[in-house]
Amino acid sequence: MAILEITQRDAVTHLTMNSPERLNALSDEMLTALQEALDNLAQDPECRVITMSGAGKAFCAGHDLRQMQAMRKNKDAGAAAFADLFDRCTSVMLRIQSMPQPVIAQVHGIATAAGCQLVATCDMAVAAEGTRFGVNGVNIGLFCSTPMVALTRNIAPKKAFEMLTTGDFIDASRAETLGLINRVVPPDTLEAQTAALADQIAAKLGAAVRIGKRAFYEQLGMNTAAAYAHTGAVMVENLANADTSEGMQAFIEKRAPDWKS
Amino acid sequence: MAILEITQRDAVTHLTMNSPERLNALSDEMLTALQEALDNLAQDPECRVITMSGAGKAFCAGHDLRQMQAMRKNKDAGAAAFADLFDRCTSVMLRIQSMPQPVIAQVHGIATAAGCQLVATCDMAVAAEGTRFGVNGVNIGLFCSTPMVALTRNIAPKKAFEMLTTGDFIDASRAETLGLINRVVPPDTLEAQTAALADQIAAKLGAAVRIGKRAFYEQLGMNTAAAYAHTGAVMVENLANADTSEGMQAFIEKRAPDWKS
Amino acid sequence: MAILEITQRDAVTHLTMNSPERLNALSDEMLTALQEALDNLAQDPECRVITMSGAGKAFCAGHDLRQMQAMRKNKDAGAAAFADLFDRCTSVMLRIQSMPQPVIAQVHGIATAAGCQLVATCDMAVAAEGTRFGVNGVNIGLFCSTPMVALTRNIAPKKAFEMLTTGDFIDASRAETLGLINRVVPPDTLEAQTAALADQIAAKLGAAVRIGKRAFYEQLGMNTAAAYAHTGAVMVENLANADTSEGMQAFIEKRAPDWKS
Repeated sequence: MAILEITQRDAVTHLTMNSPERLNALSDEMLTALQEALDNLAQDPECRVITMSGAGKAFCAGHDLRQMQAMRKNKDAGAAAFADLFDRCTSVMLRIQSMPQPVIAQVHGIATAAGCQLVATCDMAVAAEGTRFGVNGVNIGLFCSTPMVALTRNIAPKKAFEMLTTGDFIDASRAETLGLINRVVPPDTLEAQTAALADQIAAKLGAAVRIGKRAFYEQLGMNTAAAYAHTGAVMVENLANADTSEGMQAFIEKRAPDWKS
Repeated sequence: MAILEITQRDAVTHLTMNSPERLNALSDEMLTALQEALDNLAQDPECRVITMSGAGKAFCAGHDLRQMQAMRKNKDAGAAAFADLFDRCTSVMLRIQSMPQPVIAQVHGIATAAGCQLVATCDMAVAAEGTRFGVNGVNIGLFCSTPMVALTRNIAPKKAFEMLTTGDFIDASRAETLGLINRVVPPDTLEAQTAALADQIAAKLGAAVRIGKRAFYEQLGMNTAAAYAHTGAVMVENLANADTSEGMQAFIEKRAPDWKS
Repeated sequence: MAILEITQRDAVTHLTMNSPERLNALSDEMLTALQEALDNLAQDPECRVITMSGAGKAFCAGHDLRQMQAMRKNKDAGAAAFADLFDRCTSVMLRIQSMPQPVIAQVHGIATAAGCQLVATCDMAVAAEGTRFGVNGVNIGLFCSTPMVALTRNIAPKKAFEMLTTGDFIDASRAETLGLINRVVPPDTLEAQTAALADQIAAKLGAAVRIGKRAFYEQLGMNTAAAYAHTGAVMVENLANADTSEGMQAFIEKRAPDWKS
């Protein structure tokens, strides 16, 4: 079996991290597979939404510690390999947000360290009741500094600081309250409910979602006036789409739109 | 009746968007009337707080789609008119935050798309139980990219992304939890409770509120050290006010202040 | 008794603001004592976590109004003294976040104005049920512009605006919900639970916590890509620590780490 399984259901592509014996650690191989899959999907006009999950009992437990310890045998004690690892991990994280399609994490079991970062990085996340989230690297002396980047862009600073320095887990309900995930669902409905959310978005006008997701991240870091200048131009671009015109006209005429794409 | 009704009650000015047959859409006329009213009120020393509501069954349902579709008949298929529309809408939104007075949205029925943006933009918002909020342009193929600017500056990113891509509504209670509004009240008390909040603020020292609101938005985008340097100077300016000195002295002497303004 | 009592319990240093008759106001003397204590502790390799509380019935009620009113007798009506006061207060606030150790506020009674700012500024905060928080300077005509800097970096903007312009208090439970504090505990367990949280963090690898706290604030203001570039380098630095290697190896071998520091 491949380390990353890719399945297609209509316009939704599902990625399954498939290294259950390592709790789907973000190993060299996993990062390579994720980067390649995402780069390919970014070019795929049939794919409108991406969902991702982990095989086995966990979503993802972070980096592969065994692989990292092996890097210490290099002449530089692993420094270059570690730097390369974080570069590649960052590349996958940034890739998720630069994808033209929304990416939804389907989370169960545990999501820790870089696995929690992956959840925080996805555009949305649905989790099974009972899922536990943590940025607990501090427990082994490796503060979760890179996961922190994604975490602090999703939850309030004092809540993030507490998770990072105590290493404590939070459950799915708490994660939803704090803003780390969108929805908590019964475990036996996790797949169906994630798929339903994906289907709902896949049924929208693809061009509008694509334009909107790009603008979402572009404007986040701008000051308000600059963000409005940018998104005003984005609206004009969106309006030039023939299907958008049809969507607006259909709404006025109280009928369903007849979209060509 | 004017498209924007302006009523004065002591130091509180209430604006009623009055185009109920269009769900108070932010049409050309409405934006012009709002801009003019706000520009005038900014110069009005008698006005200490502004509240705004919508006539009829909704607060505001966003842009005027019929008017926008008509713009498509222009030689450039509406591009210039659309750009102008968003410029003017942005101008009203930025004007609300640059007003010397706090602006409080009094929300009922629905607040969608640019109507939800208007709620997000006001300094505060009180909503009736049952009010529904949405940035649902995606449903007609027009992603709410400009409303997103205000939305993402108020609620957590994953919650905003979900609203923007699903087009789903949230109710007033959820909007309060997410940070989009301040208070949820029974519908029959909405007007009274919004007025009471406005009165409470109107009773404060006007100069202090004015200085504070300006500093609020100025410091938001600065790094922490710069924000402190700026607000430290603002505090010194505030302290130079004779009424502030009287307020501090009155507090020490455990008596009510005798303010001249 | 000193205006700031410093007690040591293993690796945890506790600071008690000790001016209960002034509700532990951030007077000239208190700010000087805090700055000196923090500057010294920053150099103390034995200190791993700092906790701080207020003696008497309140945590801290903000600046010392009597002292400030006395400054008005200066030739410049106090302008230079006020500017100096805010500079020194800011210096303490920035010092808290630049400390190598986590700083936890142990809050009871009231935390108002600059006292609320102090809570917002600490890395974490535990509060007794019944504690009240407010940025209520507006009530005496002095808008809490400097406390606002810390407040708006912790809670949603509309909630902050409401507190700042109404002067209303919020209770500890609400403060936890909004993100201003981490935990609410029964009053008679406040000291023990704050100490337990401090002990938990003090038991982590000190170097990891130190590296992580510094990176936490450094990356907060960066755009996402820059934050990842920075924290990637921080991870490499963290990994070069011999105790971190031991912590990772111990985890793989399912045993407790044997740390040298």
